[in-house]
Amino acid sequence: MDKLLANQPAVLTIAGSDSSGGAGIQADLKTFAAHGCYGTSAITALTAQNTKGVQHVFPSSPEFLTQQLSSILDDIDVKAMKTGMLFDEKVAQAAIHTLKTHYASASSLPPLVCDPVCVSTSGHTLLDPNAIDTIIRELFPLATLITPNKAEAELLLSREARKSSRQIETVEDMLLAAEDLLSFGSKAVLLKGGHLTASVDDVRRVARAHPEIEVVRDGLLMSDEENMEILRVNCGAGGDSSALSSCELVVDVLHESSGSTSARRTMILCRSRIESTSTHGTGCTLSAAIAARLASGSDLANAVRFATRYTHLGIETADSTIGHGHGPLNHFHSMQQLFVPRITPTNPYPLSSLFIRKTSRVWKAYVEHDFVKLLGKGTLPKENFVHFIRQDYLYLRYYARAYALLAAKSSSFSAIGLATQTILNVLNEINTHTAFCATFGVSEETLLTQTPESPATAAYGAYLIDVGLRGDTTMLLVALLSCLLGYGEVGLWLKKNARPTIATPGSDDRWVILEGNPYLQWIEDYSGERYQGAVRMGLATIEARAAADPPSKHRLEEWCAVWERCTELEKGFWDMAMNLS
Amino acid sequence: MDKLLANQPAVLTIAGSDSSGGAGIQADLKTFAAHGCYGTSAITALTAQNTKGVQHVFPSSPEFLTQQLSSILDDIDVKAMKTGMLFDEKVAQAAIHTLKTHYASASSLPPLVCDPVCVSTSGHTLLDPNAIDTIIRELFPLATLITPNKAEAELLLSREARKSSRQIETVEDMLLAAEDLLSFGSKAVLLKGGHLTASVDDVRRVARAHPEIEVVRDGLLMSDEENMEILRVNCGAGGDSSALSSCELVVDVLHESSGSTSARRTMILCRSRIESTSTHGTGCTLSAAIAARLASGSDLANAVRFATRYTHLGIETADSTIGHGHGPLNHFHSMQQLFVPRITPTNPYPLSSLFIRKTSRVWKAYVEHDFVKLLGKGTLPKENFVHFIRQDYLYLRYYARAYALLAAKSSSFSAIGLATQTILNVLNEINTHTAFCATFGVSEETLLTQTPESPATAAYGAYLIDVGLRGDTTMLLVALLSCLLGYGEVGLWLKKNARPTIATPGSDDRWVILEGNPYLQWIEDYSGERYQGAVRMGLATIEARAAADPPSKHRLEEWCAVWERCTELEKGFWDMAMNLS
Repeated sequence: MDKLLANQPAVLTIAGSDSSGGAGIQADLKTFAAHGCYGTSAITALTAQNTKGVQHVFPSSPEFLTQQLSSILDDIDVKAMKTGMLFDEKVAQAAIHTLKTHYASASSLPPLVCDPVCVSTSGHTLLDPNAIDTIIRELFPLATLITPNKAEAELLLSREARKSSRQIETVEDMLLAAEDLLSFGSKAVLLKGGHLTASVDDVRRVARAHPEIEVVRDGLLMSDEENMEILRVNCGAGGDSSALSSCELVVDVLHESSGSTSARRTMILCRSRIESTSTHGTGCTLSAAIAARLASGSDLANAVRFATRYTHLGIETADSTIGHGHGPLNHFHSMQQLFVPRITPTNPYPLSSLFIRKTSRVWKAYVEHDFVKLLGKGTLPKENFVHFIRQDYLYLRYYARAYALLAAKSSSFSAIGLATQTILNVLNEINTHTAFCATFGVSEETLLTQTPESPATAAYGAYLIDVGLRGDTTMLLVALLSCLLGYGEVGLWLKKNARPTIATPGSDDRWVILEGNPYLQWIEDYSGERYQGAVRMGLATIEARAAADPPSKHRLEEWCAVWERCTELEKGFWDMAMNLS
Repeated sequence: MDKLLANQPAVLTIAGSDSSGGAGIQADLKTFAAHGCYGTSAITALTAQNTKGVQHVFPSSPEFLTQQLSSILDDIDVKAMKTGMLFDEKVAQAAIHTLKTHYASASSLPPLVCDPVCVSTSGHTLLDPNAIDTIIRELFPLATLITPNKAEAELLLSREARKSSRQIETVEDMLLAAEDLLSFGSKAVLLKGGHLTASVDDVRRVARAHPEIEVVRDGLLMSDEENMEILRVNCGAGGDSSALSSCELVVDVLHESSGSTSARRTMILCRSRIESTSTHGTGCTLSAAIAARLASGSDLANAVRFATRYTHLGIETADSTIGHGHGPLNHFHSMQQLFVPRITPTNPYPLSSLFIRKTSRVWKAYVEHDFVKLLGKGTLPKENFVHFIRQDYLYLRYYARAYALLAAKSSSFSAIGLATQTILNVLNEINTHTAFCATFGVSEETLLTQTPESPATAAYGAYLIDVGLRGDTTMLLVALLSCLLGYGEVGLWLKKNARPTIATPGSDDRWVILEGNPYLQWIEDYSGERYQGAVRMGLATIEARAAADPPSKHRLEEWCAVWERCTELEKGFWDMAMNLS
């Protein structure tokens, strides 16, 4: 079962609202959702904003921020949180105070990612300078991680009284800055290097000087340390190692403390720089993705690693047609539609009902075929029934072989066993066919040796075998389903419309005659518990397959085509029986 | 390509913020996202709210609502919009005025769904009564659809001066109310029946009296008009038609005008009533889902039909552990994770690099095998090379058969052609093997008749055929990939480490000797353009497959297992060559 149906960990964002939907709580909620988390939000300020900039700001009040936070925290078990734009000192204080009040101790606080948003990508100042000291002094010590970019890190480090203004230009500068930022008291620092330029050689140089540093290159196809020459030369990056050395990278530095200085750990995350204007809300998205991963139980290093990759792909797959300035990321690049609805109490057979509804016309033509109606009334000419039974006898040989093929293609003993049991059931079912033939004066000898195969029988039987050879076991199960379900449906439909033996008063439009019907045994067979049990088993099997291995749109279309073809072939089978062709 | 990568239509919500994330703009944004749309939001008021109720409200100002709307509409091409809680008369007027100003005429306005939110599920009054008349008079005439529930419909109809207070209790009442509500000027009315109780008999009665009304039962498994007896009897609803008749339904009425009274169209949407407390934000979600469908180009009837089903499933699949009162819906039940990242410029081979990274240890043991290293240095003993070539000759017979199986399983001429071309390439490759043997003193006669198959050869070859028989064509392509990519990688790796014929000054750690290397031809073959072209083709094929038919988690795990097994078998093949086993 995937995460979207299991419990969704709740995550809280405390940030501003971005009307255009690409940053702020909107970006956070989208990111939480893309990670299978449930998003809640306490809004510090509204902005009238779009991809070209922030036009207006309308602050919430400190009291109202507290009220929003209390409503959330009193009711919902929040597994991780993040802060974004905290607007001003009073709002920041309200947020900090509420968190401290709600959680008795810092250790009971869920993981907190603090994105020290000071200035927007578009250059708009988003944080009152007075608030910065409050955040450094009171919020950072509560944080699992702070995520400054270059400008924010420089600003934060310049607030330290003893230091003069600080510039971060190289990977070495980043390492030192991350170390200094950790002294503000958060458990870890992610210093984002999106506004810096680094090269493969820079990273190599730093890695050689600091062998204790872990260098993560998995956002970097061109890494030459992974035995992926075939992918490098073929992706246009070229195998030329001098070109590789000068290629532009984005480097983030994660610096973690685990209490003592000696246990500190540093990771450098590298990825290829991409040229894009779809960067509105990048910082919000990254910190939200880290919080979501932490809420799901990931450790910090992995949370950061996957969150940076998620954010990078969000930029790379962005829909650049949204807005006229710096457009939003694609927050849902890591998701796809589900094409078969989930199994629920009111829809326990979503795939089977989808098949039937998509082909309702041919399905009805099959299960309410004239052959079936005449059989129900008992007026079907004997020669049509006998012709049908003799051809069905030949068809069942294909059907048994198809299940044998299913067994041969199965990889578990239980699947092999189920398919084999069905073959045994078919071998049993053919006895009913010889019995029917005997009843209608056709000897087993005649049945066996003097029954030429109809084209309709060959078409259907060979199609089953062809599907079985072409596709996987699920595809074959789909091919076998129309016959299984259709005969079960016919059996139940006839039974439902059977006129009671003791006539009820008034009109009764039930038209199936059981008493004295020469085909009564056939009706009893397919409506009976034995066959209906097989139907239940078949339904359970195919639905479990589709739930455990949800098909793509492409695969579902293939399944539907196979189902429809088999349903047409079933109808064709009864056409053949009526025409004695 | 699915909708998540194609252009995402932008949708706008004008509504309140729900801190707990289940209603308001938060529910709207989640719903838009689940429908592949890009969400924007103009906030009318903040609420401090949770699953137990609305604790506090903090209104935005009319001016700031206008500013938010202007920021959005000036920059982003909105394809549909919805209104939710409009708070009070001035805010409602600001919204209406801004829309009228931005869109020159009503006909240029994108589809607008107006959810006349007056009272929350938890009983909190969310709309200033003075605002109601403004909304009726000025907003409804702009709306494509209004979506009142029972209480809202009764309230709205009671505002009409000539009418006394109005009660809606039956399906017939709903039809009349929907008709009356249409007179307020919207193009259509969806009267929601969630707070009413109806039965199958009620719907049958209304359908008989109004044959022009379309009854949609697709949210209703127990419909007895669809030839689905097999699904009914097996789902616990029972085949008993008296039980069915008394079963509780939820009925919504959609009433559409297309200008003239005669062209009006009514649809009744039925679904099974479900007992659930996860209903917080149901109304927001439904109207947002309709707006999202309209933004994607759906007609109104289909938008409503799919949106009601989406909302119903949202309730049915909800995570009931969120909050202590009326919890939120599951907005993402219709989505699943994507397990292979999308193809992007910096990651053009996401599946292949995922395979290699997941099996990096065994992959390295394969492509940097001692056999390869000695071969590169030219010091590999002749008997090991000859043993390898003779076994590889036998292996290629399996390999050619596996491609023949691929051709047999393919359903397009292009796929059949590609597989066939590979067989021809293999038949060509064996000539190089006989040539190598001749060079090393082994005659073709000896190669053909005196080469007993090694267990490593049989294991690998038979595994390819087994995978080919068991799975679909993509699974077989995965099995064939390790050999194709690995030999390409070895060829490039050796070439990359080849020492230049004219020695360069200073140290050079390149260790592959080409000049005088007895295996030079082998290195040239696999690093050469002919073989590398095949690698490119193979990469393109498998990546295109995975992109067009994204695997579920289950399928990806199967693929990874097959890839890993083949990579181990490749390593085993060179172990065999080294041990002459």
